[in-house]
Amino acid sequence: MALRTRLTEAFGLRHPVVLAPMDPASGGALAAAVSAAGGLGLIGGGYGDHDRLQREFAAAGNQRVGCGFITWSMARDPSLLDAVLARAPAALMLSFADPAPFAARIRAAGVPLICQVHTLAHARRALEVGAAVVVAQGTEAGGHGLAARGTMAFVPVVADLIAREHPETLLLAAGGIADGRGLAAALALGADGVLVGTRFWATREALIHPAAKQRVLAATGDDTVRTRVYDIARQRPWPASYTGRLLRNAFIDTWHGREDALHAAAAERRRDVEEADAAGDYDVANVTVGEAVGLIEDLPGAGDVVRRIADEAEAAIRRSAGHMAAP
Amino acid sequence: MALRTRLTEAFGLRHPVVLAPMDPASGGALAAAVSAAGGLGLIGGGYGDHDRLQREFAAAGNQRVGCGFITWSMARDPSLLDAVLARAPAALMLSFADPAPFAARIRAAGVPLICQVHTLAHARRALEVGAAVVVAQGTEAGGHGLAARGTMAFVPVVADLIAREHPETLLLAAGGIADGRGLAAALALGADGVLVGTRFWATREALIHPAAKQRVLAATGDDTVRTRVYDIARQRPWPASYTGRLLRNAFIDTWHGREDALHAAAAERRRDVEEADAAGDYDVANVTVGEAVGLIEDLPGAGDVVRRIADEAEAAIRRSAGHMAAP
Ligand SMILES: Cc1cc2nc3c(=O)[nH]c(=O)nc-3n(C[C@H](O)[C@H](O)[C@H](O)COP(=O)(O)O)c2cc1C
Ligand SMILES: Cc1cc2nc3c(=O)[nH]c(=O)nc-3n(C[C@H](O)[C@H](O)[C@H](O)COP(=O)(O)O)c2cc1C
Repeated sequence: MALRTRLTEAFGLRHPVVLAPMDPASGGALAAAVSAAGGLGLIGGGYGDHDRLQREFAAAGNQRVGCGFITWSMARDPSLLDAVLARAPAALMLSFADPAPFAARIRAAGVPLICQVHTLAHARRALEVGAAVVVAQGTEAGGHGLAARGTMAFVPVVADLIAREHPETLLLAAGGIADGRGLAAALALGADGVLVGTRFWATREALIHPAAKQRVLAATGDDTVRTRVYDIARQRPWPASYTGRLLRNAFIDTWHGREDALHAAAAERRRDVEEADAAGDYDVANVTVGEAVGLIEDLPGAGDVVRRIADEAEAAIRRSAGHMAAP
Repeated sequence: MALRTRLTEAFGLRHPVVLAPMDPASGGALAAAVSAAGGLGLIGGGYGDHDRLQREFAAAGNQRVGCGFITWSMARDPSLLDAVLARAPAALMLSFADPAPFAARIRAAGVPLICQVHTLAHARRALEVGAAVVVAQGTEAGGHGLAARGTMAFVPVVADLIAREHPETLLLAAGGIADGRGLAAALALGADGVLVGTRFWATREALIHPAAKQRVLAATGDDTVRTRVYDIARQRPWPASYTGRLLRNAFIDTWHGREDALHAAAAERRRDVEEADAAGDYDVANVTVGEAVGLIEDLPGAGDVVRRIADEAEAAIRRSAGHMAAP
């Protein structure tokens, strides 16, 4: 048995599980492992870098994978879009800015466009530009997003919008989903599958320092926070409404709420953070994970995660069906 | 058919749906309507007022209902607890402060104690004091809470904690649940049922001004925000970490982010807000609802809501089971 949804049909998957294009965790090896296990792997194109893009597509080998960009950053060098389309990706995901300037070219290339959205207004826009897949991301998600909508109430309302206005568009739930209970819940809410970040971040293949992965094993979901401090320190020009969800550490405790002072000292703090990256010092460097961290207790291979989520989801659906047993 | 869970068994319900003890929406008539339809109605004891408590229990008539308090406020007049225990409530819910000072007396009275929690640390505390039911509330919820945890990742981690440490305790999911898809999702996540606020706020029986109910019909979940401005204006001494989720309006647009100025003018602003309450002016008075508002398109009777949620949940579970059809 396996879970069949409109997503698995459309993309020829065994399981309705998509790897989030995490920067920098989702390299070619991680994306390939997810695809090999029957999910869909998306390489994290992140802020956009030609060398990294070529390297990670090469690392994915013959596995069919897609890619995702931070739209406002990719927009500074649109030749990145040509480079990725030349790879004939399984899908191309755009997040964190209006997808309109790029949507037509992606669709013309015959590549399914995935748009990640954080509000109902974003979701409307994604349908307007012809997204094949909408990802409804709740604020519990790891990484960037808005403090706007929780996954639980957001997914069904986007499902209703799609059903009303663009029924052929697919819907993924993202944010706080790390096991099969989350997948089963997402399907109940009306999604066709899930986009999973944090859980895949904590796998063998993720391009993350081992010391950072260790921190996650001990953390609970109470330990994350949405903050701009690393975007300020790293001098990333994120639109002001976006924050990143991260594991709390000494750096955040020092600077969160003191953003003006951090701006003033950004050059020095950037150096500190980059040195800490290299040294694996996660009191200073960032550990970018979401509330789902509390559901993570091991660092398995990504293929095992895909299979586990699928098996657990079937078990959860059977349990739910059991509640309907006649009295 | 009906959904049977540990909750329906323990409380003798037809449907695993509990009315949140909303202040002031959840009066005796609303609680009784929910219980009469096979759910469990909880009267909103709110900040605590003897006359209101007696009046609303009287309004519930012969229906078996429970009650909920804002713990730190009830603590200022613990005779409220005697008054409510004298009513032999179906359950007593405590939210928004350490339940320890009251737990023993409630349990000694043979009344099931429900504790609403917003973090894993709170959940541990609720188990320590012997809660019969834990409500895991996500930040998408209407009314007071924390900007700490989303329902999606919070419910399963509390389910795991309960399974490990106190397996006989029941678990309700709260926050962003307004229809049967939400109930089905909550069951998939490991809950035994749901605590629903916003959806019941928008019913005929809710003790809410008709003009406020009308606002909700036009709103989407993008239109709510967590803020302290009404607690400041109404001079309610909430612990600083708590905010209320409300529908954005002119008053919030004016004062949110200017809390110091509002504190300075609180006496005048309190008068404004109280006058607006009386006049039904919701540019100034608060409309307290959560992100689930986007799923609400009518103002039915509360009994219809209970039955709808139950029917839709069964349909959602059947749809999910359909995904498992052999290939
Ligand atoms: C480490 C990390 C990096 C991320 N980077 C990106 C990114 O570059 N582009 C993007 O669209 N989303 C990014 N995200 C967000 C994911 O697309 C997704 O919404 C999120 O991981 C889902 O929530 P979860 O972490 O609870 O599974 C990132 C998430 C994490 C955890
Ligand atoms: C108008 C309103 C008033 C509320 N008042 C209380 C209260 O007095 N005591 C309490 O424990 N919870 C209160 N809550 C929170 C609910 O218990 C519950 O957590 C919440 O409504 C669930 O989320 P939902 O609104 O998305 O259904 C209130 C919620 C609303 C919408």
